[in-house]
Amino acid sequence: MPTYHATIAITLRPSILDPEGKAVHQALQNLGQTSVQNVRVGKRITLTIEAKTKDAAYDVAETSCQKVLANPVTENYEIEIAAAAPSAA
Amino acid sequence: MPTYHATIAITLRPSILDPEGKAVHQALQNLGQTSVQNVRVGKRITLTIEAKTKDAAYDVAETSCQKVLANPVTENYEIEIAAAAPSAA
Repeated sequence: MPTYHATIAITLRPSILDPEGKAVHQALQNLGQTSVQNVRVGKRITLTIEAKTKDAAYDVAETSCQKVLANPVTENYEIEIAAAAPSAA
Repeated sequence: MPTYHATIAITLRPSILDPEGKAVHQALQNLGQTSVQNVRVGKRITLTIEAKTKDAAYDVAETSCQKVLANPVTENYEIEIAAAAPSAA
């Protein structure tokens, strides 16, 4: 069965306060990176999925986001699916 | 001065063990998502940068990665720069 890589970006919704981003912003300011105006920190998760089709792989990734990876109240997610390079199996 | 959004993907190098990814993988298996073969968890950071040019914004983002955001021994980073939508200032 073909293998796909799902790259998932999980970001806090814009209305949610991001203390980690604020901390990174302050650290950058202290190091002289004063042109940085704002920082938001999210997650980037890569799933390796065995599926018959790209659509089936997308469905697995979306279900994973809804069940485990993202908090639907505070976070948004975006999914990109790409075929994995064929392995020399 | 124009504003740019730098989207930074920080990933563990492939040779580095990812315990968070293993935990997520196990959780997905337990929930029946058995077609997921592997999980890697990284960070996705968005910087809002005021800079004269796109290249200048890239330089700020790269310096930020090297100084604060990424651990150069264990992590890789990728930077994408996009012009921010003009605000109605």
